[in-house]
This record gives sequence, C-alpha cells and structure tokens, in this order.
Amino acid sequence: MADLHIRIDRAKGGIAGQIAAELRDSIRGGRLEPGTRLPATRDLAADLQVSRGVVVEAYEQLVAEGFLVSKVGAGTQVTPANTPQRAAAPPGPQPVRGGTASAVAGHVPYHGHRPTSPDLSHFPRERWLAAVRHVLTTVPSDALDYGDPGGVPELREELAGYLRRVRAADVRPENLIVVSGVAQGLSLALHVMAGRITGRPLRLAVEDPTSHRQVPLIKRAGARVLPVPVDEEGLDVRRAGGDAVLVTPAHQFPTGVVLSPARRAALMEWAYAGRRLVLEDDYDAEFRFDRDPVGCLQGLAPDRVVLCGSVSKALAPGLRLGWVAAPPGLAEAIRRARGELDLGSPVIDQYALAHFLRTGAYDKHLRRMRREYRRRRDALVSALAAELPGARVRGIEAGLHVYLELPDGWDEQRTVRAAAELGLLAEAVGPMRRTPGPAAVVMGFARLPAHKAEAAVRGLKVRMSGQTLTEGERRA
Amino acid sequence: MADLHIRIDRAKGGIAGQIAAELRDSIRGGRLEPGTRLPATRDLAADLQVSRGVVVEAYEQLVAEGFLVSKVGAGTQVTPANTPQRAAAPPGPQPVRGGTASAVAGHVPYHGHRPTSPDLSHFPRERWLAAVRHVLTTVPSDALDYGDPGGVPELREELAGYLRRVRAADVRPENLIVVSGVAQGLSLALHVMAGRITGRPLRLAVEDPTSHRQVPLIKRAGARVLPVPVDEEGLDVRRAGGDAVLVTPAHQFPTGVVLSPARRAALMEWAYAGRRLVLEDDYDAEFRFDRDPVGCLQGLAPDRVVLCGSVSKALAPGLRLGWVAAPPGLAEAIRRARGELDLGSPVIDQYALAHFLRTGAYDKHLRRMRREYRRRRDALVSALAAELPGARVRGIEAGLHVYLELPDGWDEQRTVRAAAELGLLAEAVGPMRRTPGPAAVVMGFARLPAHKAEAAVRGLKVRMSGQTLTEGERRA
Repeated sequence: MADLHIRIDRAKGGIAGQIAAELRDSIRGGRLEPGTRLPATRDLAADLQVSRGVVVEAYEQLVAEGFLVSKVGAGTQVTPANTPQRAAAPPGPQPVRGGTASAVAGHVPYHGHRPTSPDLSHFPRERWLAAVRHVLTTVPSDALDYGDPGGVPELREELAGYLRRVRAADVRPENLIVVSGVAQGLSLALHVMAGRITGRPLRLAVEDPTSHRQVPLIKRAGARVLPVPVDEEGLDVRRAGGDAVLVTPAHQFPTGVVLSPARRAALMEWAYAGRRLVLEDDYDAEFRFDRDPVGCLQGLAPDRVVLCGSVSKALAPGLRLGWVAAPPGLAEAIRRARGELDLGSPVIDQYALAHFLRTGAYDKHLRRMRREYRRRRDALVSALAAELPGARVRGIEAGLHVYLELPDGWDEQRTVRAAAELGLLAEAVGPMRRTPGPAAVVMGFARLPAHKAEAAVRGLKVRMSGQTLTEGERRA
Repeated sequence: MADLHIRIDRAKGGIAGQIAAELRDSIRGGRLEPGTRLPATRDLAADLQVSRGVVVEAYEQLVAEGFLVSKVGAGTQVTPANTPQRAAAPPGPQPVRGGTASAVAGHVPYHGHRPTSPDLSHFPRERWLAAVRHVLTTVPSDALDYGDPGGVPELREELAGYLRRVRAADVRPENLIVVSGVAQGLSLALHVMAGRITGRPLRLAVEDPTSHRQVPLIKRAGARVLPVPVDEEGLDVRRAGGDAVLVTPAHQFPTGVVLSPARRAALMEWAYAGRRLVLEDDYDAEFRFDRDPVGCLQGLAPDRVVLCGSVSKALAPGLRLGWVAAPPGLAEAIRRARGELDLGSPVIDQYALAHFLRTGAYDKHLRRMRREYRRRRDALVSALAAELPGARVRGIEAGLHVYLELPDGWDEQRTVRAAAELGLLAEAVGPMRRTPGPAAVVMGFARLPAHKAEAAVRGLKVRMSGQTLTEGERRA
C-alpha cells in the first residue's frame, strides 16, 4: 500500500483535481511505481479530511486517463509495468520524459535578423492598433469564424487595387490568394504545380546566385532546382530549362540587378513557347528610389506569371501577410491547397490591413519610409565610395540592401563578422552561389541611420585592413 | 501613328505615372494594337502641354516593363504581335485577361459556419484589443521581425503551462510548436512522418466515422487512410493497422464517444509495441461539462503521442492559433518544416495570446463559456428527449455538438436542410463514414440559446413528420 504525501490547498478549491494532479506527478516521477496499490478511497478520504466522493472522483479521473487501473475486488493500482508505456518511463524523479537533454541541445535557436529586414523601430504601432480597434469594433461576429482560405474579400479587393496601382499588375480579387508571405506563396504554388506532373519531380529554373533560404523551401515542396546564371541584365534566359522559373525581376536577390527590357521579353517568350510558368518573387519592389518601380512581369502576362509579394518590407515580417496572384485555374487550386493545409490566414490582421490600405495609411507609411531609406542608401553608397574604392557596389536602384563585391583579399565570412560588430548587417554571397563568383556580401542599409554610415564603413575598413589574412583563412 | 487620348489630372501629380498608366491600359485593352508606333516624345509632350522629360520617363517605364519597344532610328512602338505574350491577349476592350468567366464561375464560395463553431458573439473583443494594445506598447521592435518558426518563446511557455494544468499534458516549451490550428499541426506532422518513410506512402489509421474535412488534408500530406471502426468505447484498437493513428480521444468526432480507459491502455500498447505514433486531435476538450476533462493521451506517453489543439473553440477559429506538442526529435523536425513552409505564425497575436493566458483572461473566458454552453446543451438534450423520443442522443459529455441518431424514416440531408431553416446547425454523418451506419447528424448547440431550443426542435419535428418520404428520397 502506498504511503502518499498529498498536499491540498483548500483555499483554491477543486480538491479532486488537486489530488489527481499530485497522484499523476507521483506516478510520472516514479515515486509511485507500476503496480503499486493505492489506499482505499475511504481511507485516503479520512487521511485528507475530505469526503470520499472527492477521492473517488480523483481516482476515476486517473483511471480514465490510463494512469491507474481499477478491478472489482482488487482495489485500485498504478497501471502495471507490463503495460508498455509505463516501462518506457525513465527511472528517477525526472518529471519530463522522452530523451530531452540531447534533443533540447539539438534545438537550433533562431535569429530573425536579415540584412534585408526593414527598420522596425518605424513600424506604425499606433496606426496599426487603431486599425485593429476599427476591426474589433466593426466586423460582424461571423467574420471571426472559419473564413475563406483564399482570404477575406475586403482585403483581396484592396490588394488587387493596390497591386494594379503600384505594381501595374493585372489582377482581380478572384485571382488573388492571401497567404502568410512570399515563402508560403511559393510553397503552395510549387506544391500545386508539382502535383500536376506525374512520374517525376517539377524542375524549377532558379537564378544563380539566389537566396540560400529558398533552396530548402523548393526541395520541401518536391521540386528540383536547375540553376541559371545571372549577369548584368539579370537571368540569362537562353540558359534556362525546366518546367517553370523562379525570378526576382524588380531587384534580383542578391545581386540587385533589374531584369532588362530585352530579357523581360525573352523570358515571356520562353514561358509562352514552352507553356511554362514564371514565379515572380516581388519581395522588395515597393522601394525603388530614383524613379517609379518597374511594373511587375505579371502585368505583362497574367496568364503565365504567378506574382508573390508581402508586407514584410513595407510594414513588418512578423505580420506574416502576403499575396499570390495567379492565373484563375491555378489560383483556385492554390486556394484549395491552402484550405487543406491550414484553412487560411488569421482574419483580424487581414481586416486591419484592408483598413490600412483603404484609408491610405499604407501608402503614407511607404512614402515616408521610401524617403528615409533613400537617405540611408545614399549615405551608405557615399561612404563605400569614399572609404572602399576597391569595392564594387551594385543593385542600388531599389530594395533595402546593396550588393558589395569586396576589395581584393577580403574574405566574405570575416567581412560579415566584422560588419556585425559595427552594427552593419551583412550576409555572405558564397553560400548563395551554385557556381563560383567574386567574393561579395549583401549589405543592408534599412537599419543604418545616415549619420552613422561613414563611421561604420571606416570602422569596417580598419578592421579588415588591420588583419593579415593567410591563404587558408581566406578560403575558410 | 497612334491617336492617343490621354487624360491627365494635374492636381494629382505624378504626371509621368499617369501617362504610363493610360498607355498601359490602352495596350492591354487592345486600343493600342501590337506594332503601333507612338508619337515622338516631343510631339506628345506638346499635345499634353507637359515637359518632354515627363513623356520620356513614361515611355521608358513601359519599355522597362515590356509593353513598348524602342529602337534607335525607329522610334517607340507597342511590342509587336510576334512576341508571344501580346498574341495571347484576347481581342476587344476587356481589361483583364486570362480566361476569366468560366474560371470565376468555378471559384467555389466558402462558408465557414460549422455546427461545432463556438458562439462568436461572445468573443471577448475588448479584452483581446487590450491584449493587442499591451503587445504594441511593450514588445521591442525586434519582436516584429522574422521570428522563431516554432513560435514566440513567451507563448510556448504559457501554452506549456496551460496544457500541463488543464489537459494533464507532459510538455515543455521546447516540445511545443505554435501553429495556425489543428489542421496545420496535422499537415506538418504527417508531412514530416511521411518524409521518414521511403518507397511507400505513410499509412494512417483513422477513426470511422471521421470528419470528412480531414481526409483531403491527410491525402494532400501524402498519407493513405486506413479506416478503423468506432464503437461505444471509441476506436476499436484491435482492428487498427498502419504506421500511425489519428484519434479524437476526448470527444470522438462525430460520435462524441470518450475513449474508454481499457481502449486508452490498448492504444498505448499498440503504439509502443509497433513503435507507432499516435496523433491526438484535442479539438474541443476544453468543454467537458459534468466533470473535469479527461487528461490527454499525450500526458500518458509523451514519447509516442503528438498532441494537436487550438483556440478555435475557446476563442475563435479566425484567430488561427494552435499548437503541436511532439516528442523532441519530431518537434524539431516539425519546427524546421514550418520554417521552410511559411516561416511561422504572425507574432502580434502570439504575444496577445500569451498575455491572455498569463493574466487569466483565457481561463476566465473559458469558465464563463463552459457555464453558458452547459445550459445550452442541457436545453437541447431536454428538447430532443421530449420532442423526439425516437431519436438517440450521444456524445453529450463534452464539446459543442451532440451526435443524433435520427428517428426512423428521417433522411440526413433533409434533416440538415430543415434544421438550417430553423437556425439549427447540423451536418450529415453519412459523408463521414467509410462503412454504412444508422442515419445520424452532428448538431451544434453553441449558437442555440437555451430558451430557443424547444421551439427549434419542435419545429424540426413538424417539418420532418409533415413530409412523406419515398424510398428513393430516403437513400438520396
């Protein structure tokens, strides 16, 4: 018979629940071993000075959960050891089972900062809160139910108008699916496209270099990557093969090249001639500094292009709101896939974004940030020209980063580390390449105030030139 | 030379953009045909009384976008028809291309209401807004960046505590992934599990009957469904096969059966003996009316069970917030899959839910709703007993629906339609079965105020008994 040490707190109420919780912990912790017989309910009730019904309720709860077994004439005992789940519990007082230490050590911490992230200290918190308040005081209750997996109609309407106006897209609400960002948009589109091919994986032409974050996404969606070189005009279309292509025409990542008019025409011809689809990743096109943004490819060929974009650069990545515009049949298939995957995006933020767009708060924020980012870009580009004449700066027309080909002898990884110590966010381009290229980094300027640019770049020069690199280090 | 009718609104500014937009629309609409030569920039500038630079800028924009081509000595013309994308445009003034009418007709409208949805008129709008306000006035800017795809640490901490306390789960924040709901949790878990098997699909034992919504989800995740009968004790474990099982032990959907203690033990033995995983769909376990909820299976065997739950019943489906608790190695794989699929859930709502849990607002709302739903359940069950003695009501211990075996001669679909006309949400069970069973419906009571239950059920009886069904209708 077990000697039970059960603490109960009468002030808290729910005595049966407290007894059950204490017993459960004792069984899990090994203090009550498999097969142990528990006191009769009337005895335990007397010990604890509670009514017998309370103990019966606690025992019944644990029998229902499988921690105890109860047999007529044999009383109640801890589920015996020959029941497999009990045998699997490790010995000792460790309350949590399942091989934890090594697994927790194997839990990879995640750092969200990217060179291309916007300056989130400028996130319009008050205006966003006002939009959420507007939503919560106006939407009908039914709007909080399971919604259309393609997105709430009001947001699709606003987004279609926005994309027509700002990106020269050729899109209607029916062709548009609200997603959680470019990553989900691409995942869904690839998943649907791969499902239309039988017997082999989807072959996807991808720019080389490209974001190293997208390759695992593409592979998980079941597609095979076919790298295609990028030159001064963007993707070299003549060398593209496969069933579809993924491009960043407005501002190639990482090189920053804008796809030239001739290449745009060639890419459309490639798509029409082979009945191929073009996935257009429009990740930072809102920020074009010296003139209007180049309209998206989708506006030129809405029946061949799938346009993916998000508010991650314009507002915040943490909102996880984006869109996919696709030809009608594909749009409907993507919407259905979204419904079967996760039933769609949260509705309150969707309505809030619709309100943001409708009231002009979105455009206003974009205009303000465009001016600020242009100042920061100008300051960084000037500082790089003055301090690092041996470097080559490209891709400055748009976006939130420059592509920096490093001076002779500079190593990408060491540059990234030295930059980080100075508050400069940079990323090595090497891991983004399938074929070797000059040492280069992506350097973000969204979070670098204009007045700090010169000191930061000078500091980088000092750190990098103060060190003599061995050949081995250079290649490390 | 084209005769252009371009309207510009000088008050609005951005004249070059306006000209570009007018030309773009004319090209798309077919008013400017492929190959058409445009006026020289100086002529158009004179016509419009703008500076020549403005027209140059507009033309350049459209060249960059591929709508126009410009050749030295040949002026500027609309991209010729032999360029495939232009040839694909339909004739006439229709501004949107891509085979629209039929596709829009094929766009399936979506109605979110389910019999099991909560009463959303009770959603705590003010408290939720207060939580969002708290988040937006306290979180650091970096919290709005790309976050951990497994969820924000504060929420995982709160959820782990909540699940230990309320569901007797054996879970720590590291084993927990924030997802957009049970659907996404299952999709991800199945995707990862399927990826660990080579050469054949994952075979998943599934309760029969089961939610007809989950079958497409399971198939899309690449798994094969093996139906296993459900009887008065829940899943008949002896008849289960395959690599893993999906169960609703707290309140089987649709029958409402609670998995018996003997079956819980048998299911765990099945899992351990075959090294199989159990997917536990804990979709409505917060609402158990006559005693404490039965603890989840996961608490009994955290190394074999993947627990999926959400706030859809407790707060609102539209929040799209849920969790998966899994053994450590699998949890990490699910987290990685989430990162590659869509980078994780929106952060503001995650922090808001953490605040809701921490301040007790969540528990308070649940207690209030539990009392209210119990009243509604009691009223519906009484009304059914009084008015429809020929019906059999089951599964009333928990959740937001009852399982109603219909009186002789009642047809499921006709019952559902008649119920809908009376404001009763019901769903036919037939489409949820793999093997035939008695005519039954799932009937929700969350949205049926207690004082309306009797009139609604009486109305249903009158409608149904007033109709003579032919044998053919009965089987329709």
